Amino acid sequence: MAADHVSLRRNNLSVVLRHVRAAGPRSRARIAADTGLNKATVSSLVAELVERGLLREGQAEIERGALGRPGQLVELDGSSVCGVGAEINVDYLAVAALDLSGGVVLEHRVPLDVAHQDPSTTLDRLADLIREAVAAVDARGGQTAGVTLAVPGLVQSATGSLKLAPNLGWNEVPVVDEMRARLGDPAYPFRVDNEANLAALAEYSELKKDTGNQADDLVLLTGAIGVGGGVVSDGHLLRGGHGFSGEVGHMPVAPAGRTCGCGRTGCWETVVGLTTLLNKATDADDPVRDPSLDVERRLAEITRRAEAGDARTLGALADVGTWLGIGGAILVNILNPDVLVLGGYFASLGPWLQEPLESAIRDRVIAPEGGGCRVVQSELGFAAAVRGGAQISLDQVFLDPTLIGRDATGVAQ
Amino acid sequence: MAADHVSLRRNNLSVVLRHVRAAGPRSRARIAADTGLNKATVSSLVAELVERGLLREGQAEIERGALGRPGQLVELDGSSVCGVGAEINVDYLAVAALDLSGGVVLEHRVPLDVAHQDPSTTLDRLADLIREAVAAVDARGGQTAGVTLAVPGLVQSATGSLKLAPNLGWNEVPVVDEMRARLGDPAYPFRVDNEANLAALAEYSELKKDTGNQADDLVLLTGAIGVGGGVVSDGHLLRGGHGFSGEVGHMPVAPAGRTCGCGRTGCWETVVGLTTLLNKATDADDPVRDPSLDVERRLAEITRRAEAGDARTLGALADVGTWLGIGGAILVNILNPDVLVLGGYFASLGPWLQEPLESAIRDRVIAPEGGGCRVVQSELGFAAAVRGGAQISLDQVFLDPTLIGRDATGVAQ
Repeated sequence: MAADHVSLRRNNLSVVLRHVRAAGPRSRARIAADTGLNKATVSSLVAELVERGLLREGQAEIERGALGRPGQLVELDGSSVCGVGAEINVDYLAVAALDLSGGVVLEHRVPLDVAHQDPSTTLDRLADLIREAVAAVDARGGQTAGVTLAVPGLVQSATGSLKLAPNLGWNEVPVVDEMRARLGDPAYPFRVDNEANLAALAEYSELKKDTGNQADDLVLLTGAIGVGGGVVSDGHLLRGGHGFSGEVGHMPVAPAGRTCGCGRTGCWETVVGLTTLLNKATDADDPVRDPSLDVERRLAEITRRAEAGDARTLGALADVGTWLGIGGAILVNILNPDVLVLGGYFASLGPWLQEPLESAIRDRVIAPEGGGCRVVQSELGFAAAVRGGAQISLDQVFLDPTLIGRDATGVAQ
Repeated sequence: MAADHVSLRRNNLSVVLRHVRAAGPRSRARIAADTGLNKATVSSLVAELVERGLLREGQAEIERGALGRPGQLVELDGSSVCGVGAEINVDYLAVAALDLSGGVVLEHRVPLDVAHQDPSTTLDRLADLIREAVAAVDARGGQTAGVTLAVPGLVQSATGSLKLAPNLGWNEVPVVDEMRARLGDPAYPFRVDNEANLAALAEYSELKKDTGNQADDLVLLTGAIGVGGGVVSDGHLLRGGHGFSGEVGHMPVAPAGRTCGCGRTGCWETVVGLTTLLNKATDADDPVRDPSLDVERRLAEITRRAEAGDARTLGALADVGTWLGIGGAILVNILNPDVLVLGGYFASLGPWLQEPLESAIRDRVIAPEGGGCRVVQSELGFAAAVRGGAQISLDQVFLDPTLIGRDATGVAQ
C-alpha cells in the first residue's frame, strides 16, 4: 500500500510537470481544473516540484474579471536540471547539455579519427568531454539528470552494449559499463542509443516548435561516413522488434557497387556516404579527406568549390544526389513521411542534394505529389544526435520527477 | 450535460465489452473489480450489451471457496453481430463476413479480369457479392455492423475515394459513393482501405492468437499482379502522414527493369509480381495465365510443375526468389520486424520462395541474425484482406457498442 502511494504521488508529479510544459505557465487553481486533481493536492505537488528545481513561481496571473482572486503563476524552471547527450562518430566526438526548457548550456565537438584509434583511447577522450559537460552544469548550480550516448551502430539498450558499428570497426563493446567505470560510477543514469534515432527525436522536436502539431511522420537521414536513418511514425520513434530499425545505410540498392564497411557489396552508404563523395570529388592527398580536420570545415571547402563551379565537385554531388533520390524514394514509398530531413553532411551540402532528392520523390513515389512529403535540411546538422541524447535524458525527468533531488543542487539522487 | 452523459455511457459500454473480449468470460462483480466501475453500473451496462446482442449470459461461475455467492458469468455473444469485408483485386473479387468472436460466417471469391472490365461492371458484381454476405448475416438473425472494402491502390479514407490503382487501371473513383448507391444507401457504415493494410491487420490478429503477446512488429507482403505491403509497428498499423505508406511494390530496385503498371521502370513488382513469374514460367497461350480462372487453381498448377521438377518453372521461381530477397532485405533493414509474412501468391508458392528470402535476410540485413526476423507463410492467403476488412468493421462496434440496435436483430440503427 505504501508503495502504491509513492507510485501514485510520482505519477501525479509527472502529470503536473508535463502539463505545465505542454500548456505553459498557469495558476495552481488552473492546473487543478485542467488535470482533475484537487487544489490541495496540486499545491503540495507544485511545492515539491519547486523544491526539486523543476517548477518556479512566475508572474501574478492577470485578473480575469470579478471571478476569484488573481493567483500566482507557476512555470517550468529551465535553469537547474540538465540532460547531457554525447556522441561517438567515425570522425568526431561530441557532447551537449540542454536545460529543462531546451536551452543549450554547452555544445562541443572535436575531430577524432575513431576508426584508427583503440576503442579505449576513444572512450577516454569521450569521458573528458562528458566531464566537461557535467562541470558546466555544476558551474551553474544545476543537476545532471542523465547522459545518453549516441553511437553509429546497432545497440542493445537493455545491456548497454554496442553490438556492431562497422564504420568504427567496433564489435560487442559494453560502452555503458566502460563509460561508467571511466566516470567513477556516477549517480546519474547513463544510456546508449543509436545516433540516427536520437537525431530523429531532436529533429522532430525542432519541427514541432516550428509547425505545431501538423507533422507526426518524419524520416531523418544522417549523412556521414556511414548513413543512418531514424523514423518517427505517428509521433513515436519506430524501433522495430529488437531495436534495430532504421538501418537504411545497408539497404541493398546497388548490387554492382563497391564493398561496404560492413563487408557486403552494394549497400546504400557505398553510393551516398561521405567517403564516396570525397573519393569522387578529390584526390587522395587532398586535405578535404583528412579526418583529423573538423568535418564542417572540410564540407565548407567542398561548398566553396561547388559554388566556384568546379566540375569534378559538381559531378560527384550529382552522382550522390541521384543515388540519394533512389534510396529516398524507397523510404518515402514505404513510410509516407510528412517530412524527410536531410541531416549530417546531407544538410551541409543540401543546396546540391535537395533538388535531386525532391525530383526523385516526385518521379518515383507512387502516391500523388510524393505522398505530400517535404524535404528539409536539418538546422541542427551534426549536433542533432547529441541534442536528442540530452532530450531523452530529460524525458526521464518528466516521467519521474523524483529522479531529481529535493535540494535542487548537486547530482541526482 | 446530457450529451456528456451519453458519451460517458457509450465509453463505459465500450470498456466493458472490450474487457470481456480481452479477459474472457467473467461475473459482473469481477468486471466491476477489474474496471473500477461500480457494481450497479456494471449490471446496467451488461444488461444493455446483452440487449444489443453483444454479450450473453454464460455458465454459473465456479465457486471460489467461502467468499461470496457464485455469480453468473457473461461472455462475448459472437453470433448476432457481423462485420463484412469485401475486396476488388486485379483478377478476383472477394467477400467475407465474420462474427464478433471472429468466426467465419461466409467467404466467397470469384475470378474476374477487373483490369479489362468497365469499373461500373466490376462494382455491380461486387454489390452482388456484398448483398450475398449481408443476406447470410440476416439469415442467421444477425446484424451487419459495417462493410470495409479493400482495394489494391492508394485510398483517401476521408472522402471514400480510390485515388489510384495502377493494376486495375482505376483513377479517382469515388468507390464508397458508388457502392452505397448500388446497395440502396444502407444503414451500416461503408469504408474503403488499402488491401495490404487490411491484410496486415488480419495477419497480426492471427499471429496474436498463435503467439500471445510476443510479436508486435510485422510486415506483410501481398503477392498478386501488384505487390503490396502492410506494416504493423508496435501493435499499430503504420499509415504514414497521408495514409499512403506500404507502397513496397513501387520501390525502385531494378533500374534496368521493365515498365510497371504505374508507368515507371524498375519497380519491385516488375520483378516479383505474379505477371512476371507467369511470363517467365509459361508460354503466352498457357491456361495458367488466364485471368478468368481462379488464381488458386492456377497456382496449384505451378506448384504441380515445380514439384515435378520442371526446369523453366523452377528457374522462374528462383529469379523471383532472388528479387524477393533484395526487397525483403531492404524492408527488414528499415523496419526490423519480428515477423515477415508472405501473403497472396508468395504464400501459395512459399515452399520455393521462403528459403531465398530467408537467405537474403541472413546475408543482407546488418543486424545480427536478420534482426531476429522470422519469415512465415500466411495461412489466410488471398482471404487476408477481406478478413481484415471485416475486423475493422467490427472494431467500430467495440469502440461504440451503440452502433448496434437494441433489439439485436435487423440492420444497425
